[in-house]
Amino acid sequence: MQKIEVKIPSCPKNSYTIAVGDEFLPAVLGQIKKLLPGKELFLITDANIAKTKHLKKLTGLCNLYRYVITPAGEKSKNINTVTKIVEQMEKKALGRDCAVIALGGGTVGDIAGFVAAIYKRGVPVVQIPTTTVAQADSAIGGKTGVDSSISKNAFGVFKNPTAVYIDVSTLKTLDDKQFNAGLVESIKHALIADKDYFDYLQKNLSGILARKSQPLEYIAVKNCRIKASVVENDPYEKNKRRILNYGHTIGHTVESASNYKLLHGQAVAIGIIAANIIEQKLGLGGEERLASLKKLFGRLDISLKVPKSITKRQILDIISRDKKAVQKWPRFVLLEKTGKVLCKNGQFALQVERKIVEETIDILLNRNL
Amino acid sequence: MQKIEVKIPSCPKNSYTIAVGDEFLPAVLGQIKKLLPGKELFLITDANIAKTKHLKKLTGLCNLYRYVITPAGEKSKNINTVTKIVEQMEKKALGRDCAVIALGGGTVGDIAGFVAAIYKRGVPVVQIPTTTVAQADSAIGGKTGVDSSISKNAFGVFKNPTAVYIDVSTLKTLDDKQFNAGLVESIKHALIADKDYFDYLQKNLSGILARKSQPLEYIAVKNCRIKASVVENDPYEKNKRRILNYGHTIGHTVESASNYKLLHGQAVAIGIIAANIIEQKLGLGGEERLASLKKLFGRLDISLKVPKSITKRQILDIISRDKKAVQKWPRFVLLEKTGKVLCKNGQFALQVERKIVEETIDILLNRNL
Repeated sequence: MQKIEVKIPSCPKNSYTIAVGDEFLPAVLGQIKKLLPGKELFLITDANIAKTKHLKKLTGLCNLYRYVITPAGEKSKNINTVTKIVEQMEKKALGRDCAVIALGGGTVGDIAGFVAAIYKRGVPVVQIPTTTVAQADSAIGGKTGVDSSISKNAFGVFKNPTAVYIDVSTLKTLDDKQFNAGLVESIKHALIADKDYFDYLQKNLSGILARKSQPLEYIAVKNCRIKASVVENDPYEKNKRRILNYGHTIGHTVESASNYKLLHGQAVAIGIIAANIIEQKLGLGGEERLASLKKLFGRLDISLKVPKSITKRQILDIISRDKKAVQKWPRFVLLEKTGKVLCKNGQFALQVERKIVEETIDILLNRNL
Repeated sequence: MQKIEVKIPSCPKNSYTIAVGDEFLPAVLGQIKKLLPGKELFLITDANIAKTKHLKKLTGLCNLYRYVITPAGEKSKNINTVTKIVEQMEKKALGRDCAVIALGGGTVGDIAGFVAAIYKRGVPVVQIPTTTVAQADSAIGGKTGVDSSISKNAFGVFKNPTAVYIDVSTLKTLDDKQFNAGLVESIKHALIADKDYFDYLQKNLSGILARKSQPLEYIAVKNCRIKASVVENDPYEKNKRRILNYGHTIGHTVESASNYKLLHGQAVAIGIIAANIIEQKLGLGGEERLASLKKLFGRLDISLKVPKSITKRQILDIISRDKKAVQKWPRFVLLEKTGKVLCKNGQFALQVERKIVEETIDILLNRNL
């Protein structure tokens, strides 16, 4: 037998910039054209954004090729939508020298990022997130994907954007429910990385809820800094990046079991409460934090009640299919204290025995939260 | 406006090994298990391979999870097949700690590589190519993809395999037409990189066609070395890797216009002839080479006649959608001499004026070759 070694060259250290500001959307297209000279641009947005003035502000007089995801939301986040977009791009005869712009919330960003990653083996993507959840979380860090009929982001890749533009004025057209649910990711960032930020959120919640520019810019920058510092260390989620999954193991499960009737943020709020219950069961303390969190979620008008239709069996079945499961049982991210994740033997995602998880699910399903 | 810089860490230089030999399939699974300890393995193969003894030789007594692509061939190379495989993997509750094994020809390798690249944001893939075309070309270098209704590999990514195992004994069950068509990629390698290899192929064709182990191993190693040396320098096809596309610009177009009734190798043979005609029109010479090529393709029983149903308009339409088109017109790889690609100003894919390409298409459509 003969052996041939094929070298894969190292890729150089690289970076991208997140610009955060208020009311600067009309300047963004010019900046993108400078950043990606000669690229034909293809815009992906959704039916919600198409109704707002954000789209017009971004495109100005340019008649960009575009695809409007209809209906907006998780229901369209599947491979059929990806196929339709790819075929639309092909019909416009776009080559590998095109680039994708994503204008919208998490669904738009996830779909557009995935399309860019797989279109003719990859073209650049620029993310312009317009929701609290996308600005805090999904537009940064390169996770993209679409759901299968069985699980969330079953199809996906890591695809870093070429640039991210966060204009907090886009948040002003968001309905209250979406706006508030997206703030759960900010709370998560504070919990895993920064106690002062947790205090800030509690103290400044009314300004945030009134959608004042100053606190909105403050939290956008804070979220990006926290998320960036995590993903820089572990872009492919081998270990430390998992801390961003705080509250998401049970959160994703409940979201999926509800057939996506729960908003992502609401599901993650339930997941964060679940993580806090597990922490207490493991003797890690945090009674005061659990009380503050319930109060905070209350102020956001987020119900912590798991929908009645969801059964324990369903939750246990879905949890065994977790993307990050090892031998069909997920690992959990837990807090050592507010602002710090528990790390054991260098690992940030930890085994929790089944009994404790099951007891926690029982508490959630009792709906006394 | 505030700016946050997100660093993307450099990825370390890496490599994978291609093992080439005869009759070593029964040892491969053990080697994969050593290479990927603890990974749950998922085998992707097709209906043709399932009928041969190769599958049994590989799996032995192990009852691997598997998906058999049915029907075998280009018709199944689409996103529906990918979706079915992903859902099958999910039903087996495979997490991100699984790995994919591709046993089969180019279609199996392309589909399986793409599935591995996008399954839960990426799992490893091991390629075990069983056809002349896959052993010479598609299993090496990390190109994966599936076709849309409009073009070839419209969906795709670059995904390097973790290992490649080439057992030339698998070629013995291949039908003559497939076997011969796959040798066109060997001829292409010789043309772009190694005149001695071109002479070897002409001299040893009868041994190859008799499927003797010695020349089959020789050409497998030669093909891998040539392809590896190209992809190592330019894994993402920014420039030099394009030389592997010699004959493929017109080749892919004719293949697509025939609705994949032409075998890939036959289409590339037509594309190689087209490239030689363009070379002569540009005064690059090569009259002798064109004669040798016609003779060689004749010995392989490969018809150079473009199917009657294909029109010039169709070809020009498809060519404008070429993945590597710049402003809707493809670049061409051309030979300076046998074994050496023409390089102009550091570029290996060159502009050719439309008139010359159209005249060449006219010659092909006259069907006098």
